[in-house]
Amino acid sequence: MNKQNPFENIRVVLSHTTHPGNIGAAARAMKTMGLRHLYLINPRHYPDPQADAMAAGADDVLRDAVQCRSIDEALYGAVFTVAMTARMRDISIEVKTPREAMPILLQHAAVQPVAILFGTEMSGLTNEEIGKAQVLVNIPAHPEFSSLNVAAAVQVIGYELVVAAQNYLPNEPEIRPAPHEQVEGFFEQMEKTLFDIGFLTTQNPARLMQRLRRLYARSRLEQEEINILRGILSVATEYNARLRARYQQDHKDV
Amino acid sequence: MNKQNPFENIRVVLSHTTHPGNIGAAARAMKTMGLRHLYLINPRHYPDPQADAMAAGADDVLRDAVQCRSIDEALYGAVFTVAMTARMRDISIEVKTPREAMPILLQHAAVQPVAILFGTEMSGLTNEEIGKAQVLVNIPAHPEFSSLNVAAAVQVIGYELVVAAQNYLPNEPEIRPAPHEQVEGFFEQMEKTLFDIGFLTTQNPARLMQRLRRLYARSRLEQEEINILRGILSVATEYNARLRARYQQDHKDV
Repeated sequence: MNKQNPFENIRVVLSHTTHPGNIGAAARAMKTMGLRHLYLINPRHYPDPQADAMAAGADDVLRDAVQCRSIDEALYGAVFTVAMTARMRDISIEVKTPREAMPILLQHAAVQPVAILFGTEMSGLTNEEIGKAQVLVNIPAHPEFSSLNVAAAVQVIGYELVVAAQNYLPNEPEIRPAPHEQVEGFFEQMEKTLFDIGFLTTQNPARLMQRLRRLYARSRLEQEEINILRGILSVATEYNARLRARYQQDHKDV
Repeated sequence: MNKQNPFENIRVVLSHTTHPGNIGAAARAMKTMGLRHLYLINPRHYPDPQADAMAAGADDVLRDAVQCRSIDEALYGAVFTVAMTARMRDISIEVKTPREAMPILLQHAAVQPVAILFGTEMSGLTNEEIGKAQVLVNIPAHPEFSSLNVAAAVQVIGYELVVAAQNYLPNEPEIRPAPHEQVEGFFEQMEKTLFDIGFLTTQNPARLMQRLRRLYARSRLEQEEINILRGILSVATEYNARLRARYQQDHKDV
Protein backbone atom coordinates (compact mmCIF):
# COMPACT_ATOMS: atom_id res chain seq x y z
CA MET A 1 0.00 0.00 0.00
CA ASN A 2 1.43 3.33 -1.02
CA LYS A 3 0.03 6.57 0.33
CA GLN A 4 2.13 8.81 -1.90
CA ASN A 5 1.03 7.71 -5.35
CA PRO A 6 -2.47 6.30 -5.79
CA PHE A 7 -1.36 4.59 -9.04
CA GLU A 8 0.71 2.20 -6.90
CA ASN A 9 -2.54 0.89 -5.43
CA ILE A 10 -4.18 0.22 -8.81
CA ARG A 11 -4.23 -3.29 -10.28
CA VAL A 12 -5.07 -3.94 -13.91
CA VAL A 13 -6.62 -7.41 -13.97
CA LEU A 14 -6.93 -9.24 -17.31
CA SER A 15 -9.16 -12.27 -17.12
CA HIS A 16 -8.60 -15.28 -19.40
CA THR A 17 -6.85 -13.31 -22.13
CA THR A 18 -6.64 -15.37 -25.33
CA HIS A 19 -3.92 -13.60 -27.33
CA PRO A 20 -0.57 -13.05 -25.61
CA GLY A 21 0.07 -10.06 -27.91
CA ASN A 22 -2.81 -8.30 -26.15
CA ILE A 23 -1.16 -8.86 -22.77
CA GLY A 24 2.02 -7.24 -24.04
CA ALA A 25 0.15 -4.33 -25.64
CA ALA A 26 -1.82 -3.85 -22.40
CA ALA A 27 1.45 -3.74 -20.42
CA ARG A 28 2.76 -1.06 -22.75
CA ALA A 29 -0.49 0.93 -22.50
CA MET A 30 -0.28 0.67 -18.70
CA LYS A 31 3.29 1.87 -18.55
CA THR A 32 2.60 4.92 -20.72
CA MET A 33 0.05 5.95 -18.11
CA GLY A 34 2.18 5.16 -15.06
CA LEU A 35 0.35 1.94 -14.12
CA ARG A 36 2.59 -0.93 -13.01
CA HIS A 37 0.57 -3.70 -11.42
CA LEU A 38 -0.70 -6.27 -13.90
CA TYR A 39 -2.65 -9.32 -12.73
CA LEU A 40 -3.42 -12.16 -15.14
CA ILE A 41 -6.19 -14.64 -14.43
CA ASN A 42 -5.50 -17.86 -16.35
CA PRO A 43 -4.09 -16.36 -19.56
CA ARG A 44 -4.23 -18.88 -22.41
CA HIS A 45 -0.60 -18.45 -23.49
CA TYR A 46 1.78 -16.86 -21.07
CA PRO A 47 4.67 -16.16 -20.95
CA ASP A 48 4.94 -15.86 -24.69
CA PRO A 49 7.31 -14.11 -27.12
CA GLN A 50 4.36 -12.25 -28.68
CA ALA A 51 3.63 -10.65 -25.32
CA ASP A 52 7.26 -9.54 -25.05
CA ALA A 53 7.25 -8.17 -28.60
CA MET A 54 4.10 -6.09 -28.05
CA ALA A 55 5.25 -4.80 -24.64
CA ALA A 56 7.95 -2.77 -26.46
CA GLY A 57 9.76 -1.32 -23.46
CA ALA A 58 7.25 -2.31 -20.79
CA ASP A 59 8.94 -5.64 -20.10
CA ASP A 60 9.23 -4.69 -16.42
CA VAL A 61 5.44 -4.57 -16.15
CA LEU A 62 5.23 -8.00 -17.81
CA ARG A 63 8.01 -9.46 -15.68
CA ASP A 64 6.29 -8.36 -12.46
CA ALA A 65 2.82 -9.52 -13.62
CA VAL A 66 1.03 -11.65 -11.02
CA GLN A 67 -0.54 -14.83 -12.36
CA CYS A 68 -3.71 -15.90 -10.57
CA ARG A 69 -5.89 -18.99 -10.80
CA SER A 70 -9.12 -17.26 -9.81
CA ILE A 71 -10.72 -13.88 -9.68
CA ASP A 72 -10.81 -14.01 -5.89
CA GLU A 73 -7.07 -14.44 -5.86
CA ALA A 74 -6.65 -11.45 -8.17
CA LEU A 75 -8.94 -9.24 -6.09
CA TYR A 76 -7.61 -10.30 -2.70
CA GLY A 77 -7.22 -7.20 -0.55
CA ALA A 78 -8.90 -4.84 -3.04
CA VAL A 79 -11.54 -2.57 -1.54
CA PHE A 80 -13.00 -1.31 -4.79
CA THR A 81 -13.31 -3.04 -8.14
CA VAL A 82 -14.41 -1.60 -11.45
CA ALA A 83 -15.42 -4.07 -14.18
CA MET A 84 -15.20 -3.06 -17.84
CA THR A 85 -18.09 -3.98 -20.10
CA ALA A 86 -18.76 -3.40 -23.78
CA ARG A 87 -22.41 -4.27 -23.43
CA MET A 88 -25.14 -2.65 -21.41
CA ARG A 89 -26.11 -5.67 -19.41
CA ASP A 90 -29.36 -6.78 -17.92
CA ILE A 91 -27.94 -6.14 -14.49
CA SER A 92 -28.89 -3.24 -12.31
CA ILE A 93 -25.35 -2.76 -11.04
CA GLU A 94 -24.29 0.86 -11.46
CA VAL A 95 -22.87 1.63 -14.93
CA LYS A 96 -20.62 4.66 -15.17
CA THR A 97 -18.50 6.28 -17.86
CA PRO A 98 -14.70 6.20 -17.49
CA ARG A 99 -14.82 9.92 -16.77
CA GLU A 100 -17.21 9.40 -13.87
CA ALA A 101 -15.60 6.28 -12.46
CA MET A 102 -11.86 7.04 -12.53
CA PRO A 103 -11.93 9.94 -10.04
CA ILE A 104 -13.80 7.65 -7.61
CA LEU A 105 -11.35 4.82 -8.15
CA LEU A 106 -8.49 7.24 -7.54
CA GLN A 107 -9.96 8.38 -4.22
CA HIS A 108 -10.07 4.79 -3.02
CA ALA A 109 -6.61 4.08 -4.42
CA ALA A 110 -5.21 6.90 -2.32
CA VAL A 111 -5.65 4.71 0.75
CA GLN A 112 -6.14 1.07 -0.27
CA PRO A 113 -5.76 -1.33 -3.21
CA VAL A 114 -8.29 -1.17 -6.02
CA ALA A 115 -8.73 -3.14 -9.24
CA ILE A 116 -9.88 -2.64 -12.82
CA LEU A 117 -11.13 -5.83 -14.38
CA PHE A 118 -10.97 -6.56 -18.14
CA GLY A 119 -12.68 -9.62 -19.61
CA THR A 120 -11.61 -12.08 -22.25
CA GLU A 121 -11.42 -10.91 -25.89
CA MET A 122 -14.43 -12.72 -27.30
CA SER A 123 -17.06 -12.58 -24.60
CA GLY A 124 -15.93 -10.10 -21.97
CA LEU A 125 -16.50 -10.74 -18.30
CA THR A 126 -18.77 -13.47 -16.96
CA ASN A 127 -21.72 -12.61 -14.76
CA GLU A 128 -19.83 -14.16 -11.86
CA GLU A 129 -16.91 -11.81 -12.47
CA ILE A 130 -19.22 -8.81 -12.86
CA GLY A 131 -20.79 -9.73 -9.54
CA LYS A 132 -17.47 -9.18 -7.78
CA ALA A 133 -17.28 -5.54 -8.86
CA GLN A 134 -18.83 -2.48 -7.26
CA VAL A 135 -19.11 -0.45 -10.43
CA LEU A 136 -19.41 -1.33 -14.12
CA VAL A 137 -17.70 0.94 -16.61
CA ASN A 138 -18.63 1.22 -20.27
CA ILE A 139 -16.37 3.06 -22.70
CA PRO A 140 -18.67 5.01 -24.99
CA ALA A 141 -18.29 3.66 -28.53
CA HIS A 142 -20.04 3.35 -31.86
CA PRO A 143 -23.19 1.25 -31.32
CA GLU A 144 -22.56 -0.88 -34.41
CA PHE A 145 -18.95 -1.75 -33.67
CA SER A 146 -18.25 -1.26 -30.02
CA SER A 147 -15.68 -3.96 -29.33
CA LEU A 148 -12.46 -2.25 -28.39
CA ASN A 149 -9.33 -4.32 -28.35
CA VAL A 150 -8.52 -5.12 -24.70
CA ALA A 151 -5.19 -3.23 -24.78
CA ALA A 152 -6.94 -0.27 -26.39
CA ALA A 153 -9.48 -0.30 -23.54
CA VAL A 154 -6.61 -0.36 -21.02
CA GLN A 155 -5.14 2.64 -22.84
CA VAL A 156 -8.37 4.65 -22.62
CA ILE A 157 -8.85 3.84 -18.94
CA GLY A 158 -5.23 4.63 -18.12
CA TYR A 159 -5.59 7.91 -19.96
CA GLU A 160 -8.69 8.80 -17.94
CA LEU A 161 -6.77 7.95 -14.76
CA VAL A 162 -3.98 10.34 -15.72
CA VAL A 163 -6.53 13.06 -16.48
CA ALA A 164 -8.32 12.34 -13.18
CA ALA A 165 -4.98 12.49 -11.34
CA GLN A 166 -4.33 15.95 -12.76
CA ASN A 167 -7.53 17.14 -11.09
CA TYR A 168 -7.04 14.99 -8.02
CA LEU A 169 -7.64 16.40 -4.58
CA PRO A 170 -7.09 13.97 -1.71
CA ASN A 171 -10.39 13.61 0.03
CA GLU A 172 -10.92 11.27 2.92
CA PRO A 173 -13.45 8.74 1.54
CA GLU A 174 -16.73 8.82 3.42
CA ILE A 175 -16.67 5.09 3.86
CA ARG A 176 -13.86 2.57 4.27
CA PRO A 177 -15.02 -0.41 2.24
CA ALA A 178 -13.97 -3.84 3.44
CA PRO A 179 -11.54 -5.81 1.25
CA HIS A 180 -12.78 -8.19 -1.39
CA GLU A 181 -12.25 -11.43 0.56
CA GLN A 182 -14.28 -10.14 3.52
CA VAL A 183 -17.19 -9.29 1.27
CA GLU A 184 -16.94 -12.70 -0.40
CA GLY A 185 -16.93 -14.41 3.02
CA PHE A 186 -20.12 -12.57 3.85
CA PHE A 187 -21.80 -13.65 0.60
CA GLU A 188 -20.78 -17.26 1.20
CA GLN A 189 -22.25 -17.24 4.66
CA MET A 190 -25.39 -15.54 3.41
CA GLU A 191 -25.95 -18.11 0.68
CA LYS A 192 -25.45 -20.94 3.13
CA THR A 193 -27.77 -19.33 5.64
CA LEU A 194 -30.47 -18.72 3.06
CA PHE A 195 -30.34 -22.43 2.26
CA ASP A 196 -30.35 -23.42 5.91
CA ILE A 197 -33.39 -21.37 6.75
CA GLY A 198 -35.17 -22.62 3.67
CA PHE A 199 -35.31 -19.30 1.83
CA LEU A 200 -33.31 -20.71 -1.06
CA THR A 201 -34.68 -24.03 -2.16
CA THR A 202 -33.51 -24.31 -5.72
CA GLN A 203 -30.17 -25.80 -6.58
CA ASN A 204 -29.41 -22.76 -8.71
CA PRO A 205 -29.52 -19.69 -6.50
CA ALA A 206 -27.28 -17.71 -8.87
CA ARG A 207 -29.87 -15.19 -9.96
CA LEU A 208 -31.03 -14.33 -6.49
CA MET A 209 -27.49 -14.12 -5.16
CA GLN A 210 -26.64 -11.87 -8.10
CA ARG A 211 -29.39 -9.46 -7.03
CA LEU A 212 -28.18 -9.45 -3.45
CA ARG A 213 -24.64 -8.78 -4.64
CA ARG A 214 -25.88 -5.75 -6.57
CA LEU A 215 -27.63 -4.38 -3.54
CA TYR A 216 -24.51 -4.65 -1.39
CA ALA A 217 -22.25 -3.47 -4.21
CA ARG A 218 -24.18 -0.20 -4.13
CA SER A 219 -23.74 0.17 -0.41
CA ARG A 220 -19.96 -0.64 -0.34
CA LEU A 221 -19.88 -2.59 2.89
CA GLU A 222 -17.48 -1.59 5.63
CA GLN A 223 -15.74 -4.15 7.84
CA GLU A 224 -17.94 -3.39 10.84
CA GLU A 225 -21.11 -3.63 8.80
CA ILE A 226 -20.02 -7.02 7.54
CA ASN A 227 -19.46 -8.10 11.14
CA ILE A 228 -22.98 -7.00 12.03
CA LEU A 229 -24.55 -8.70 9.02
CA ARG A 230 -22.63 -11.90 9.63
CA GLY A 231 -23.76 -11.77 13.25
CA ILE A 232 -27.34 -11.53 12.10
CA LEU A 233 -26.83 -14.47 9.75
CA SER A 234 -25.31 -16.56 12.53
CA VAL A 235 -28.16 -15.80 14.88
CA ALA A 236 -30.70 -16.49 12.15
CA THR A 237 -29.15 -19.90 11.60
CA GLU A 238 -29.00 -20.72 15.27
CA TYR A 239 -32.54 -19.54 15.83
CA ASN A 240 -33.66 -21.59 12.88
CA ALA A 241 -31.77 -24.62 14.12
CA ARG A 242 -33.46 -24.27 17.52
CA LEU A 243 -36.88 -23.90 15.86
CA ARG A 244 -36.30 -26.97 13.79
CA ALA A 245 -35.09 -28.95 16.78
CA ARG A 246 -38.15 -27.93 18.76
CA TYR A 247 -40.44 -28.78 15.84
CA GLN A 248 -38.88 -32.20 15.56
CA GLN A 249 -39.18 -32.59 19.34
CA ASP A 250 -42.86 -31.58 19.25
CA HIS A 251 -43.64 -33.99 16.45
CA LYS A 252 -41.83 -36.78 18.25
CA ASP A 253 -43.88 -36.04 21.41
CA VAL A 254 -47.19 -36.21 19.59
CA MET B 1 -18.77 17.01 -46.99
CA ASN B 2 -21.50 15.86 -44.69
CA LYS B 3 -23.53 18.28 -42.62
CA GLN B 4 -25.36 15.65 -40.62
CA ASN B 5 -22.55 13.80 -38.89
CA PRO B 6 -19.34 15.69 -38.12
CA PHE B 7 -17.45 12.37 -37.91
CA GLU B 8 -17.90 12.04 -41.68
CA ASN B 9 -15.70 15.11 -42.09
CA ILE B 10 -12.86 13.79 -39.94
CA ARG B 11 -9.77 12.23 -41.53
CA VAL B 12 -7.32 10.16 -39.55
CA VAL B 13 -3.98 10.63 -41.29
CA LEU B 14 -1.14 8.21 -40.51
CA SER B 15 2.20 9.39 -41.83
CA HIS B 16 4.91 6.92 -42.86
CA THR B 17 3.66 4.11 -40.62
CA THR B 18 6.30 1.38 -40.32
CA HIS B 19 4.32 -1.63 -39.04
CA PRO B 20 1.26 -2.67 -41.05
CA GLY B 21 -0.22 -4.22 -37.89
CA ASN B 22 -0.49 -0.72 -36.47
CA ILE B 23 -2.47 0.42 -39.51
CA GLY B 24 -4.95 -2.43 -38.96
CA ALA B 25 -5.20 -1.77 -35.22
CA ALA B 26 -5.72 1.94 -35.93
CA ALA B 27 -8.54 1.08 -38.36
CA ARG B 28 -10.21 -1.02 -35.68
CA ALA B 29 -9.77 1.74 -33.08
CA MET B 30 -11.31 4.21 -35.53
CA LYS B 31 -14.31 2.04 -36.28
CA THR B 32 -15.11 1.50 -32.59
CA MET B 33 -15.41 5.26 -32.32
CA GLY B 34 -17.39 5.80 -35.53
CA LEU B 35 -14.49 7.19 -37.56
CA ARG B 36 -14.27 5.95 -41.14
CA HIS B 37 -11.83 8.00 -43.16
CA LEU B 38 -8.29 6.75 -43.01
CA TYR B 39 -5.49 8.42 -45.00
CA LEU B 40 -2.09 6.81 -45.29
CA ILE B 41 0.96 8.82 -46.29
CA ASN B 42 3.61 6.47 -47.73
CA PRO B 43 3.09 3.50 -45.40
CA ARG B 44 6.12 1.20 -45.48
CA HIS B 45 4.13 -2.02 -46.07
CA TYR B 46 0.62 -1.70 -47.36
CA PRO B 47 -1.60 -3.53 -48.12
CA ASP B 48 -0.37 -6.31 -45.86
CA PRO B 49 -1.96 -9.37 -44.24
CA GLN B 50 -0.89 -8.12 -40.79
CA ALA B 51 -2.96 -5.00 -41.30
CA ASP B 52 -5.98 -7.14 -42.19
CA ALA B 53 -5.45 -9.39 -39.17
CA MET B 54 -5.28 -6.50 -36.73
CA ALA B 55 -8.26 -4.69 -38.26
CA ALA B 56 -10.48 -7.49 -36.89
CA GLY B 57 -13.79 -6.42 -38.40
CA ALA B 58 -12.77 -2.97 -39.55
CA ASP B 59 -11.73 -4.21 -43.00
CA ASP B 60 -14.12 -1.68 -44.58
CA VAL B 61 -12.09 1.17 -43.07
CA LEU B 62 -8.89 -0.41 -44.42
CA ARG B 63 -10.41 -1.09 -47.83
CA ASP B 64 -11.51 2.55 -48.19
CA ALA B 65 -8.20 3.95 -46.91
CA VAL B 66 -6.77 6.67 -49.16
CA GLN B 67 -3.09 6.30 -49.98
CA CYS B 68 -1.23 9.59 -50.44
CA ARG B 69 2.28 10.46 -51.54
CA SER B 70 2.56 13.67 -49.56
CA ILE B 71 1.10 15.44 -46.60
CA ASP B 72 -0.36 18.12 -48.84
CA GLU B 73 -2.27 15.45 -50.71
CA ALA B 74 -3.62 14.04 -47.45
CA LEU B 75 -4.68 17.45 -46.15
CA TYR B 76 -6.15 18.70 -49.43
CA GLY B 77 -9.44 20.43 -48.64
CA ALA B 78 -9.03 20.27 -44.85
CA VAL B 79 -9.71 23.54 -43.04
CA PHE B 80 -8.34 22.48 -39.67
CA THR B 81 -5.54 20.07 -38.81
CA VAL B 82 -4.51 18.76 -35.43
CA ALA B 83 -1.06 17.14 -35.16
CA MET B 84 -0.35 14.61 -32.42
CA THR B 85 2.92 14.88 -30.57
CA ALA B 86 4.46 12.90 -27.72
CA ARG B 87 7.04 15.54 -27.04
CA MET B 88 6.67 19.11 -25.92
CA ARG B 89 8.49 20.71 -28.80
CA ASP B 90 10.54 23.79 -29.12
CA ILE B 91 7.83 25.32 -31.23
CA SER B 92 5.47 27.98 -30.06
CA ILE B 93 2.52 26.48 -31.93
CA GLU B 94 -0.43 26.03 -29.57
CA VAL B 95 -0.35 22.72 -27.64
CA LYS B 96 -3.66 21.48 -26.32
CA THR B 97 -4.90 18.39 -24.50
CA PRO B 98 -7.22 15.99 -26.35
CA ARG B 99 -10.04 17.18 -24.11
CA GLU B 100 -9.49 20.78 -25.14
CA ALA B 101 -8.87 20.14 -28.81
CA MET B 102 -11.53 17.62 -29.81
CA PRO B 103 -14.55 19.88 -29.19
CA ILE B 104 -12.91 22.52 -31.40
CA LEU B 105 -12.15 19.96 -34.11
CA LEU B 106 -15.75 18.81 -33.96
CA GLN B 107 -17.08 22.33 -34.45
CA HIS B 108 -15.02 22.67 -37.62
CA ALA B 109 -15.97 19.16 -38.75
CA ALA B 110 -19.61 20.11 -38.57
CA VAL B 111 -19.14 22.20 -41.70
CA GLN B 112 -15.90 21.25 -43.46
CA PRO B 113 -13.22 18.54 -43.62
CA VAL B 114 -10.66 18.36 -40.81
CA ALA B 115 -7.69 16.09 -40.15
CA ILE B 116 -5.87 14.47 -37.25
CA LEU B 117 -2.27 13.74 -38.06
CA PHE B 118 -0.27 10.87 -36.48
CA GLY B 119 3.46 10.54 -37.08
CA THR B 120 5.66 7.54 -37.68
CA GLU B 121 6.26 5.06 -34.86
CA MET B 122 9.87 5.86 -34.06
CA SER B 123 10.16 9.60 -34.42
CA GLY B 124 6.67 11.07 -34.67
CA LEU B 125 5.93 13.93 -37.02
CA THR B 126 8.58 15.99 -38.77
CA ASN B 127 8.79 19.74 -38.21
CA GLU B 128 7.54 20.18 -41.75
CA GLU B 129 4.43 18.11 -40.95
CA ILE B 130 3.89 19.94 -37.66
CA GLY B 131 4.04 23.21 -39.57
CA LYS B 132 0.98 22.20 -41.59
CA ALA B 133 -1.21 21.93 -38.49
CA GLN B 134 -3.08 24.63 -36.63
CA VAL B 135 -2.99 22.93 -33.24
CA LEU B 136 -0.64 20.41 -31.60
CA VAL B 137 -2.17 17.83 -29.28
CA ASN B 138 -0.29 15.98 -26.59
CA ILE B 139 -1.87 13.00 -24.84
CA PRO B 140 -0.94 13.30 -21.16
CA ALA B 141 1.24 10.33 -20.24
CA HIS B 142 3.88 9.17 -17.79
CA PRO B 143 6.94 11.38 -18.24
CA GLU B 144 9.37 8.43 -18.21
CA PHE B 145 7.54 6.30 -20.78
CA SER B 146 5.27 8.45 -22.83
CA SER B 147 5.37 6.74 -26.20
CA LEU B 148 1.90 5.43 -26.91
CA ASN B 149 1.48 2.94 -29.70
CA VAL B 150 0.04 4.80 -32.70
CA ALA B 151 -3.19 2.73 -32.71
CA ALA B 152 -3.56 3.31 -28.96
CA ALA B 153 -3.23 7.04 -29.59
CA VAL B 154 -5.92 6.81 -32.28
CA GLN B 155 -8.12 5.02 -29.73
CA VAL B 156 -7.70 7.74 -27.11
CA ILE B 157 -8.38 10.51 -29.62
CA GLY B 158 -11.41 8.68 -31.03
CA TYR B 159 -12.72 8.20 -27.53
CA GLU B 160 -12.35 11.91 -26.79
CA LEU B 161 -14.21 12.67 -30.01
CA VAL B 162 -17.12 10.45 -28.94
CA VAL B 163 -17.20 12.13 -25.54
CA ALA B 164 -17.03 15.55 -27.20
CA ALA B 165 -19.85 14.56 -29.55
CA GLN B 166 -22.04 13.69 -26.57
CA ASN B 167 -21.70 17.27 -25.36
CA TYR B 168 -21.78 18.73 -28.85
CA LEU B 169 -23.85 21.78 -29.60
CA PRO B 170 -23.67 23.00 -33.18
CA ASN B 171 -22.24 26.45 -33.03
CA GLU B 172 -21.56 28.46 -36.13
CA PRO B 173 -17.74 28.86 -36.08
CA GLU B 174 -16.67 32.47 -35.77
CA ILE B 175 -14.30 32.11 -38.65
CA ARG B 176 -14.35 30.04 -41.81
CA PRO B 177 -10.76 28.93 -42.26
CA ALA B 178 -9.52 28.46 -45.81
CA PRO B 179 -8.65 24.94 -46.91
CA HIS B 180 -5.15 23.58 -46.55
CA GLU B 181 -4.07 24.04 -50.18
CA GLN B 182 -5.03 27.73 -50.18
CA VAL B 183 -2.97 28.33 -47.08
CA GLU B 184 -0.05 26.44 -48.61
CA GLY B 185 -0.35 28.49 -51.79
CA PHE B 186 -0.10 31.64 -49.70
CA PHE B 187 3.02 30.39 -47.90
CA GLU B 188 4.64 29.50 -51.20
CA GLN B 189 3.99 32.95 -52.60
CA MET B 190 5.18 34.56 -49.39
CA GLU B 191 8.46 32.64 -49.39
CA LYS B 192 9.06 33.51 -53.01
CA THR B 193 8.24 37.16 -52.39
CA LEU B 194 10.51 37.38 -49.37
CA PHE B 195 13.33 36.18 -51.58
CA ASP B 196 12.43 38.54 -54.39
CA ILE B 197 12.41 41.59 -52.18
CA GLY B 198 15.65 40.51 -50.54
CA PHE B 199 14.23 39.89 -47.07
CA LEU B 200 15.29 36.25 -47.22
CA THR B 201 18.86 35.93 -48.35
CA THR B 202 19.91 32.57 -46.94
CA GLN B 203 19.37 29.38 -48.87
CA ASN B 204 17.73 27.84 -45.80
CA PRO B 205 14.71 29.92 -44.88
CA ALA B 206 13.07 27.02 -42.98
CA ARG B 207 13.29 28.51 -39.53
CA LEU B 208 11.88 31.86 -40.50
CA MET B 209 9.09 30.30 -42.54
CA GLN B 210 8.30 28.06 -39.57
CA ARG B 211 7.79 31.12 -37.40
CA LEU B 212 5.55 32.73 -39.97
CA ARG B 213 3.54 29.51 -40.23
CA ARG B 214 2.98 29.54 -36.48
CA LEU B 215 1.79 33.11 -36.56
CA TYR B 216 -0.77 32.36 -39.27
CA ALA B 217 -1.70 29.00 -37.70
CA ARG B 218 -2.87 30.92 -34.68
CA SER B 219 -4.96 33.28 -36.76
CA ARG B 220 -6.62 30.56 -38.92
CA LEU B 221 -6.70 32.45 -42.20
CA GLU B 222 -9.98 32.80 -44.04
CA GLN B 223 -10.18 32.72 -47.84
CA GLU B 224 -10.71 36.45 -48.18
CA GLU B 225 -7.82 37.23 -45.86
CA ILE B 226 -5.59 35.05 -47.99
CA ASN B 227 -6.71 36.96 -51.07
CA ILE B 228 -5.79 40.23 -49.37
CA LEU B 229 -2.41 38.97 -48.16
CA ARG B 230 -1.58 37.53 -51.56
CA GLY B 231 -2.59 40.82 -53.12
CA ILE B 232 -0.13 42.62 -50.83
CA LEU B 233 2.60 40.14 -51.73
CA SER B 234 1.98 40.69 -55.44
CA VAL B 235 2.17 44.44 -55.08
CA ALA B 236 5.30 44.17 -52.95
CA THR B 237 6.93 42.05 -55.62
CA GLU B 238 5.97 44.46 -58.38
CA TYR B 239 7.10 47.46 -56.36
CA ASN B 240 10.40 45.76 -55.66
CA ALA B 241 10.79 44.84 -59.31
CA ARG B 242 10.23 48.47 -60.28
CA LEU B 243 12.72 49.65 -57.65
CA ARG B 244 15.29 47.24 -58.92
CA ALA B 245 14.69 48.16 -62.52
CA ARG B 246 15.10 51.83 -61.67
CA TYR B 247 18.22 51.10 -59.62
CA GLN B 248 19.73 49.22 -62.53
CA GLN B 249 18.68 52.03 -64.86
CA ASP B 250 20.30 54.63 -62.59
CA HIS B 251 23.50 52.65 -62.40
CA LYS B 252 23.55 52.16 -66.13
CA ASP B 253 23.06 55.90 -66.56
CA VAL B 254 25.94 56.72 -64.31
